[in-house]
Amino acid sequence: MTAPLDDTALDQLFRAARTHNRWQDRAVGDETLRQLYDLVKMAPTSANSSPGRFVFIRTREGKERLRPALSAGNLDKTMTAPVTVIVAWDQRFHDKLPVLFPHADAKSWFTGNAAFAEATAFRNASMQAGYLIMAARALGLDTGPMSGFDNARVDEAFLANTGWKSNLLVNLGYGDEAGLQARLPRLAFDEAVDLA
Amino acid sequence: MTAPLDDTALDQLFRAARTHNRWQDRAVGDETLRQLYDLVKMAPTSANSSPGRFVFIRTREGKERLRPALSAGNLDKTMTAPVTVIVAWDQRFHDKLPVLFPHADAKSWFTGNAAFAEATAFRNASMQAGYLIMAARALGLDTGPMSGFDNARVDEAFLANTGWKSNLLVNLGYGDEAGLQARLPRLAFDEAVDLA
Repeated sequence: MTAPLDDTALDQLFRAARTHNRWQDRAVGDETLRQLYDLVKMAPTSANSSPGRFVFIRTREGKERLRPALSAGNLDKTMTAPVTVIVAWDQRFHDKLPVLFPHADAKSWFTGNAAFAEATAFRNASMQAGYLIMAARALGLDTGPMSGFDNARVDEAFLANTGWKSNLLVNLGYGDEAGLQARLPRLAFDEAVDLA
Repeated sequence: MTAPLDDTALDQLFRAARTHNRWQDRAVGDETLRQLYDLVKMAPTSANSSPGRFVFIRTREGKERLRPALSAGNLDKTMTAPVTVIVAWDQRFHDKLPVLFPHADAKSWFTGNAAFAEATAFRNASMQAGYLIMAARALGLDTGPMSGFDNARVDEAFLANTGWKSNLLVNLGYGDEAGLQARLPRLAFDEAVDLA
């Protein structure tokens, strides 16, 4: 029988973790990014469709390529983050289904139904963004997810000829607590939950 | 400095966790559902918008109300799960932004821009579904997320007059390993990741 994780772990994943804006001068190595992906890939997606794709931008050249797509409020924290992840989805994710979901012809559910394919990719790649944030925290990293950027520019600068489409950005690194803002309120149970 | 969680925790959250189809005869109490929400609500959403809403169906009457909306393949495992969560989003989530994000007029970003509001709600409620799955596993629960159901019927049966819209379902309980299917493959790092 599986027990709950201890309070230290729940704090690290959920309660004490914060969205960070300033970063310690501490690199995130490619080996850590591989560990991160190896966790994220295991978490569930619809029909194992795994539509999420991830561009890890960790070079100066990559960051400069990203710069023109960033909103003013996201510029400094993103240019200084050790890694910025473009969480994207593959518009042709269903081409992998004969391997990923071999016991049914799942590919045929999506070919010829572009709206269903798009909704499935958007939903599940967003869930995978959630997994990425949790996996990063589980590995001791801090995160800073963002929607404030020009998706078309990111797609043009990083995803041309891939068929991938950008969803959101997530900064990764080791946060500097001096850059934290006050914790914002959350909805109470009764505002967000119904029991049936 | 935050350390990585140990292998037992990483296994529980990602590597050993499975999507479950059969359930032990063991209830999930309402106190556990409150603990679950108290974790989920802390994880990040865009501008703290917190669009996700959650209907915890745990009564026989609630399950019978859900039954006609379920696809054949999801019927038995859902009817027998101790709890089924409707993960939804609030189409008027931005009405809460003066409280949730008080330092800017974030509500005005969404009123009058229905497409942006819908994309923000869908993206972030899906991320919150990912957080829910991770939080459940952190609390020692097993999960079974599903998209195979009739959204319009669920909305009509559970969300009428709320302004909430169903996104996906997640079964919750303590899984019976005898009901597990073989682990499906995942995409290799080089198939899903690009470095820049």
